[in-house]
Amino acid sequence: MSNKIKVGIVGGTGYTGVELLRLLAPHPHAELHAITSRGEAGTAVADMFPNLRGHVSLKFTDPSSSSLKDCDVVFFATPHGVAMKQSQELLAAGVRIIDLAADYRLQDTAVFEKWYGMPHSEPELLRESVYGLPEVNRAKIKTARIVGNPGCYPTATQLGFLPLIESGCVDIAHLVADAKSGVSGAGRKAEVHTLFAEASDNFKAYGVSGHRHLPEISERLSVAAGKAVGLTFVPHLTPLIRGIHTTLYARITREEDFQALFEKRYASEPFVDVLPPKSHPETRSVRASNTCRIAVHRPQGGDTLVILSVIDNLVKGAAGQAVQNMNIMFGYDECAGLGQVPVLP
Amino acid sequence: MSNKIKVGIVGGTGYTGVELLRLLAPHPHAELHAITSRGEAGTAVADMFPNLRGHVSLKFTDPSSSSLKDCDVVFFATPHGVAMKQSQELLAAGVRIIDLAADYRLQDTAVFEKWYGMPHSEPELLRESVYGLPEVNRAKIKTARIVGNPGCYPTATQLGFLPLIESGCVDIAHLVADAKSGVSGAGRKAEVHTLFAEASDNFKAYGVSGHRHLPEISERLSVAAGKAVGLTFVPHLTPLIRGIHTTLYARITREEDFQALFEKRYASEPFVDVLPPKSHPETRSVRASNTCRIAVHRPQGGDTLVILSVIDNLVKGAAGQAVQNMNIMFGYDECAGLGQVPVLP
Amino acid sequence: MSNKIKVGIVGGTGYTGVELLRLLAPHPHAELHAITSRGEAGTAVADMFPNLRGHVSLKFTDPSSSSLKDCDVVFFATPHGVAMKQSQELLAAGVRIIDLAADYRLQDTAVFEKWYGMPHSEPELLRESVYGLPEVNRAKIKTARIVGNPGCYPTATQLGFLPLIESGCVDIAHLVADAKSGVSGAGRKAEVHTLFAEASDNFKAYGVSGHRHLPEISERLSVAAGKAVGLTFVPHLTPLIRGIHTTLYARITREEDFQALFEKRYASEPFVDVLPPKSHPETRSVRASNTCRIAVHRPQGGDTLVILSVIDNLVKGAAGQAVQNMNIMFGYDECAGLGQVPVLP
Amino acid sequence: MSNKIKVGIVGGTGYTGVELLRLLAPHPHAELHAITSRGEAGTAVADMFPNLRGHVSLKFTDPSSSSLKDCDVVFFATPHGVAMKQSQELLAAGVRIIDLAADYRLQDTAVFEKWYGMPHSEPELLRESVYGLPEVNRAKIKTARIVGNPGCYPTATQLGFLPLIESGCVDIAHLVADAKSGVSGAGRKAEVHTLFAEASDNFKAYGVSGHRHLPEISERLSVAAGKAVGLTFVPHLTPLIRGIHTTLYARITREEDFQALFEKRYASEPFVDVLPPKSHPETRSVRASNTCRIAVHRPQGGDTLVILSVIDNLVKGAAGQAVQNMNIMFGYDECAGLGQVPVLP
Repeated sequence: MSNKIKVGIVGGTGYTGVELLRLLAPHPHAELHAITSRGEAGTAVADMFPNLRGHVSLKFTDPSSSSLKDCDVVFFATPHGVAMKQSQELLAAGVRIIDLAADYRLQDTAVFEKWYGMPHSEPELLRESVYGLPEVNRAKIKTARIVGNPGCYPTATQLGFLPLIESGCVDIAHLVADAKSGVSGAGRKAEVHTLFAEASDNFKAYGVSGHRHLPEISERLSVAAGKAVGLTFVPHLTPLIRGIHTTLYARITREEDFQALFEKRYASEPFVDVLPPKSHPETRSVRASNTCRIAVHRPQGGDTLVILSVIDNLVKGAAGQAVQNMNIMFGYDECAGLGQVPVLP
Repeated sequence: MSNKIKVGIVGGTGYTGVELLRLLAPHPHAELHAITSRGEAGTAVADMFPNLRGHVSLKFTDPSSSSLKDCDVVFFATPHGVAMKQSQELLAAGVRIIDLAADYRLQDTAVFEKWYGMPHSEPELLRESVYGLPEVNRAKIKTARIVGNPGCYPTATQLGFLPLIESGCVDIAHLVADAKSGVSGAGRKAEVHTLFAEASDNFKAYGVSGHRHLPEISERLSVAAGKAVGLTFVPHLTPLIRGIHTTLYARITREEDFQALFEKRYASEPFVDVLPPKSHPETRSVRASNTCRIAVHRPQGGDTLVILSVIDNLVKGAAGQAVQNMNIMFGYDECAGLGQVPVLP
Repeated sequence: MSNKIKVGIVGGTGYTGVELLRLLAPHPHAELHAITSRGEAGTAVADMFPNLRGHVSLKFTDPSSSSLKDCDVVFFATPHGVAMKQSQELLAAGVRIIDLAADYRLQDTAVFEKWYGMPHSEPELLRESVYGLPEVNRAKIKTARIVGNPGCYPTATQLGFLPLIESGCVDIAHLVADAKSGVSGAGRKAEVHTLFAEASDNFKAYGVSGHRHLPEISERLSVAAGKAVGLTFVPHLTPLIRGIHTTLYARITREEDFQALFEKRYASEPFVDVLPPKSHPETRSVRASNTCRIAVHRPQGGDTLVILSVIDNLVKGAAGQAVQNMNIMFGYDECAGLGQVPVLP
Repeated sequence: MSNKIKVGIVGGTGYTGVELLRLLAPHPHAELHAITSRGEAGTAVADMFPNLRGHVSLKFTDPSSSSLKDCDVVFFATPHGVAMKQSQELLAAGVRIIDLAADYRLQDTAVFEKWYGMPHSEPELLRESVYGLPEVNRAKIKTARIVGNPGCYPTATQLGFLPLIESGCVDIAHLVADAKSGVSGAGRKAEVHTLFAEASDNFKAYGVSGHRHLPEISERLSVAAGKAVGLTFVPHLTPLIRGIHTTLYARITREEDFQALFEKRYASEPFVDVLPPKSHPETRSVRASNTCRIAVHRPQGGDTLVILSVIDNLVKGAAGQAVQNMNIMFGYDECAGLGQVPVLP
């Protein structure tokens, strides 16, 4: 017990917060030390999230009074803009930071400010921070003081496109990502359009003009390509609780054994599973787990590849990836605490 | 009463069958005369479909003994291959035919035989038959003896692509249709993959290698284009009962006012609703109605158009379109019996 | 057109409001004249509810400026407490009122004030008003100036219990109503517990200590019994959009042919369908329609009757029943505009 | 590894089978040795259940060729009637048996034969077998050769009623259990009524005349009471994948502190959680876990108690309880391998 790291969570009342708790409560190397919420200070976490009864005995504490500075690592499961404001103080106390919001995702502050409508208060920390996609940045994550945990759509989309882009075999000027998300991706805010009676038995696109995950995906794919990519990104809301399915379209510019390309790229990745040819990954095959499953298709032998990529948006798309990053940062087995078998049915 | 037409339905135990009954029971110009089912002969239709209690008093009759030949029009809501076998006899009796299966959709018999795995027994009738998409073939439908009612995906996809293709302003060699269907599209057959515990809270693509609706869409779009189109078509199963949402991608080759193009194309169509710019049509906005709603997007002002098109797969994608065809064939108001306000929520 | 009645709706932005519009737009004897909303004045109704595009051209108007007083009848689809405040002025202008909230349901003002936490400002109008369950109060509804439209649970529960209570054959001191409601019953307010990600794939009881529909049911059943009844009422939230299923338990105190009792009681009721013995009514068999379906069971021949009663909470449980009351009040065919075939699947 | 017990599963292609695999694959004391399926012999288990990719490497083997006799324990996740036929041979080989079907649930063979429509071929083994509800039979389970794992409804219902019945404070002649189950309870058989398009957005009772779990509950409650109980049991199908919610009604015959009664009864039970007064347990609060949560209500201070009891039908209602029984039988920590935090949302 004594050699577990102390973990703090800021803003634990949303879905990424409760998911962090589900994963961290039984984690072999982590000890929940503090969880803050301005509105719920004093409330037992398990009173708000009854699934945690018997697993988490902490109460929410007020952010000001909390002992976050005693922690080894603090996760921010907060709205955009919160983590940057508390970063300096925590870093000064030797605390490492994993932000599940967007404060440390986009490296270009101008782009951040355009899409998130607020100035970035810590441009230097932003430069220092590491984008926490382990399949790309593992070495940097190991030593990072601040990790910007990727968005859910960006995780599924990048993992699907990366092998193609890194190998330079497709037209990167005209990528298409048609993405579908379960409703938990919208968070636990009370809003009309995510009510059961609105979102159930219904399917719609949204944000076609421009979604905040578009610049994140574009930026990271451009880094991988070594030049700017062109991406059409269309998110959709589908009546699942959890799950993202991205259907990716790319025009072939150079022949390859595309199946082998993916298998080789992810051969040693513990959380990316390249399915056999002709497969159709289902979101439930990764439900409540940290796995991304990918299938590679070339319909009718034409010149357009179709890549299917699924994750659980709350796990590999948020809390699970954050724990994976924590494991890397602290030198633990990358899979520690992430061995959950997906829940099917 | 006496000047209503007599309507027969072959194979009324599936979802297109019960949906035909829902629409035809209160139809002002149609009288349900016979409904056949080999397995359910003698059963009251309302015993199988309790929503019809008080609305439909017919019993299923055996196909052999039934009085289909007394009808003015017969709908086939049967598996593929049934309608063609009964067509000659019915036509000889002066009955007009609307087939909701695929027997009279694909004009190229070789293509039919490849995708449906059976010979076409009536190639001459196939040549005579009319593809029943009123927005394209209204004049021919009026006088047709046999109408091949379009598939559900093909209806939503064609209505979304047609204005672009007819005007010749996009690259027709590389069209992408990413389509999502509710589970009723798979029919009322008992199969494991469409069980509630399999299909609920789950999302997946299927048939990426090749789905039967691909050749249908390609053939009709090629007719519209005057030359062969290239189409990548990826269908997905989404946990809705009813609804199809297609997200269509096309590269611009000539500038146009695309919103105006769509509005003009469908200005006089009673069942196609072009939404204002920036709209995101929801499947529930057409639930249980014969309307197709379409939105036109050009994300980030780039060179790729995104067209969103939604229908209720059982209505505009099947039974409603069949009734629309019947109205046209018999000279009724095209909207007769199809005025249902969509059910929301 | 000229001899249609003018209809006004106060508070048309919730689910009962949009459902009233769905039913009234094609109603043969009603003309939508005004629909008010403080927050949405100036917005086209069809912009908020896209299912109404092409069916309703009205805009919301501010309550103060609206021409409600020109109407023949005004429906209140508002929170509790609104209708009572506007009643005097409308009545003075000759307008008849149908309130879909609770202001005119409970005859005992003390009970109203206890359960709804507000004083009743119009006790005299309350005494004058008629409880709008046509199966009980048809004659009084015909001439009423104010109708208090029943709650959804009370409608399903009363229709299931009434034949037993009126005939005096069960122990009325220990009735049990175990009721399950779809989520639309909670309205279109943004609240966490009715979010898709909270209410989907989940089932729970709520309000076991006391739900506002308990006194309403008790009061009306007591009126039917001629003395106070004892009722245990447990509502549950179930992941449906629409639908209420009540499972009612009553101890037999006198033998009867219970099936015949129900069939006789409802023989001439257009919207109550007593199913054959051994039936299990499904909520979808009444989806989007004004019908209540009931089945009568006596398991194992024991001394406990089990009555199953289903309605669509937004139709027979709210807007449909309100239109039924309007039809009665204005002397139209009681079924006018209510002939919708339930939507299944 | 060497001191793990060898586990076999007969009939692993249904939901209880895949759930056993999800729980047993990471179990610290169990090693999956054989899994049989007549129809799927040779297929990798993970090809049928893609959630198990990376977790289970076994293939299905033919029942005849399989090495079940080398196992320490064999689970039967088969249709009723299979386990009894293979019991003698396995017992003779020293294998202990946990049957998840009904062969060893009902002690009265006549009752078994009436409700399951087949003779019981092993009445002596039935007499020897132990009903596997640990909260009642822990000591006997420890030494049992054959455990009959309880049904899902019976588990939730008994745990809710037992404290009342054991303490003799309610009228046991008129118990009411109103139970609601998710659709996975119907198994993974392809049947029309459990299709997504049938069971989604729908709610219905079924088997009101008599469900097979009625005699099981009655028999066990009668054992607890020391005399025959009278029970009205009404199961309902609700659109969840997993979860059972029972709402239990009992008339008080002797005053007690009912909350304290429940808390005391289950104080040392690791998998029964008595919630604080006024609570409403949600099925999702136990999703994918072995916990049963119970709340005790006395509405309006009347004479009728309402007990709410929720489980995951596939875990505490099937596979999890079976693993709990295995742990007890082999002297392991009863919670071994069953520490999963419920998945919410």
